Amino acid sequence: MAYQGGLEGIAVADITTSFVDGSVGELIYSGYRIEDLAENATFEEVLFLLFHSRLPTRQEYAELRATIAANAAIPDAVIAMLQALPKATSAMAALRTAVSMLAAFDADAENLLDKDVAACKALRLTGQIMTICAAWMRIVRGQTPLQPRSDLGVAQNFVYMMSGEEPDATASAALDVYLVLLAEHGMNASTFAARVVTATGSDMHSAIVAGIGALKGPAHGGANSAAMNMFLEIGEVDNVVPWFEANIKSGKRRIMGIGHRVYKAPDPRAAILKRQAKALAENSGNRKWFDIADKLAETARADEYFIQRKLYPNVDYYSAIALYTLDLDVDMFTPLFAMARIAGWAAHVIAQMGGRLIRPKANYVGPRDLPWLPLDER
Amino acid sequence: MAYQGGLEGIAVADITTSFVDGSVGELIYSGYRIEDLAENATFEEVLFLLFHSRLPTRQEYAELRATIAANAAIPDAVIAMLQALPKATSAMAALRTAVSMLAAFDADAENLLDKDVAACKALRLTGQIMTICAAWMRIVRGQTPLQPRSDLGVAQNFVYMMSGEEPDATASAALDVYLVLLAEHGMNASTFAARVVTATGSDMHSAIVAGIGALKGPAHGGANSAAMNMFLEIGEVDNVVPWFEANIKSGKRRIMGIGHRVYKAPDPRAAILKRQAKALAENSGNRKWFDIADKLAETARADEYFIQRKLYPNVDYYSAIALYTLDLDVDMFTPLFAMARIAGWAAHVIAQMGGRLIRPKANYVGPRDLPWLPLDER
Repeated sequence: MAYQGGLEGIAVADITTSFVDGSVGELIYSGYRIEDLAENATFEEVLFLLFHSRLPTRQEYAELRATIAANAAIPDAVIAMLQALPKATSAMAALRTAVSMLAAFDADAENLLDKDVAACKALRLTGQIMTICAAWMRIVRGQTPLQPRSDLGVAQNFVYMMSGEEPDATASAALDVYLVLLAEHGMNASTFAARVVTATGSDMHSAIVAGIGALKGPAHGGANSAAMNMFLEIGEVDNVVPWFEANIKSGKRRIMGIGHRVYKAPDPRAAILKRQAKALAENSGNRKWFDIADKLAETARADEYFIQRKLYPNVDYYSAIALYTLDLDVDMFTPLFAMARIAGWAAHVIAQMGGRLIRPKANYVGPRDLPWLPLDER
Repeated sequence: MAYQGGLEGIAVADITTSFVDGSVGELIYSGYRIEDLAENATFEEVLFLLFHSRLPTRQEYAELRATIAANAAIPDAVIAMLQALPKATSAMAALRTAVSMLAAFDADAENLLDKDVAACKALRLTGQIMTICAAWMRIVRGQTPLQPRSDLGVAQNFVYMMSGEEPDATASAALDVYLVLLAEHGMNASTFAARVVTATGSDMHSAIVAGIGALKGPAHGGANSAAMNMFLEIGEVDNVVPWFEANIKSGKRRIMGIGHRVYKAPDPRAAILKRQAKALAENSGNRKWFDIADKLAETARADEYFIQRKLYPNVDYYSAIALYTLDLDVDMFTPLFAMARIAGWAAHVIAQMGGRLIRPKANYVGPRDLPWLPLDER
């Protein structure tokens, strides 16, 4: 019997957060073009926009920033748990565990019905995920985690906690653009996982933990780390074409970060991130990784296979270069994606609350009418 | 635009693990009637059946039991994490966090491709979830967690770790039937959540953690705790009819544990659990809670609203009575459901590995073409 395993083209909700037109490469958040938002908006403005379908006033904006910063610290027990993990633990597994554990210390964790309470929890989680990401990176590097500062926005605070120094303006601004670009993207797989969990009446933390688990996959958010590992493996610009011939033309492997379920035209986020990655690379005095990525994209885009299938670099491809240039460990790339996507996940979770249980069906193709056989007769 | 928010009737996979015919109240696991399995099979036999689509030989059965028991201990760091949680933490939140944390100590956690490795991880998780459930219950009761024994099956081992004494045969047998009945149930919401996570290429622990988060919801596995809390609130058999009139006939509340998305006929598991709950209650010398549940079900089934909508007691309804009589804390009921359902989750996760990304779409109904407005112009 035929079935639609990927659920392509099946709409599961009306949403107001974002619209993706993959045929022309268009992305809007609640009416605003992603290009305008990347140029003008901060991550906190986008968070407000996704929650309220309008931009904040100056006062609302200041309050939102203050609320996130004031609630961004994480309990000592969560830090102790992170410190008890082997250093080789996947950063996404560490983040997933820490977010799950935070529920135990959130007085509203088991409030399953009130959407305003859920929105407050989401703001706490936004700051806490930022703090967990910075803490885990410091722990892995053998450094002591730092407390978040109450006077900084999300991007600045993360840059501060990562370095322990006054946050570099260029790095903070670049990270803020990254967070804006990755904040929301329609009914992507991690958002859908969070909605499936919410539809059982479960809590915000359970839903976000499911989103983190889904984002971790290499066919979703895990692609940014996978792309960087591929660039590192290629190692030199001169090696791009031989590597492409040996690994891609031969059909042995796929290029990580090229192609997307929805976009059959250039991903508008990729264009912005490409410019940003280039500027960051030039600013850092080392263009090598950008040049490798650019050369590989050019090689792929000249290939009939990629042209026919309309496969373009996606958001993960150039974000890998941008994040690497910001001195993030490769394993931290996907947690940084989560640090942005908490905005979209939370907006979707709140919209899903009180909605219908999401329960598709399966086609049973196994045996029927078997008589029971005792152990000794098998 | 119309959409199918609950995904009713949309098949997302071919499966061989179970078939539910809700119109007649039939459930089979890989060809065997649930009635035959409940009477004859142990949980470990069912686990093998779900993974391999056939019953194990005596040797395979012995090996499976030994493997689960030998890998059921959990690291000290996970016990320490559980002990650091506030005692009022939801047991499902504690379980979710502990399972997530276990990934950090599983050498194969990040093996995302090998189905045999995944099956071994699933057996480890089966024993570990049993151990976490018993450990959390002891911690909440102010007792020291016990190590699992290598000579006991899952049901016996749990009863042993809960009590610290030689496992009672009646309790172990009753728990084993419960685990068999709850092990698998088609494309339910938690199984689907685990599949959505797996379809991104993510790992077994991420998928099971998502399943736990979905099961936690009161419209899914959380219904067993909710049903027991309702029975406790009613308190006396004589209070059933007045409670029904005041809360249900008035339309104020719904009966927890009556009605099911799939069954429009009696749930065959509920019939088995009803007999079992009755026997356990009589054996314990206290039939009160069984009698309250039975009277409430009878009252509801005589009501036009329930008759017309074909609403019958589901698996959670009588399992609440059975688990309560086994001396489990009410908050532990849903973790016990997870201890059974790990079997089905894992079988579905392994089947989903390497499959297509599950990504439905959304209908965008928000604003379009908005020009950017600077902060001071809003």
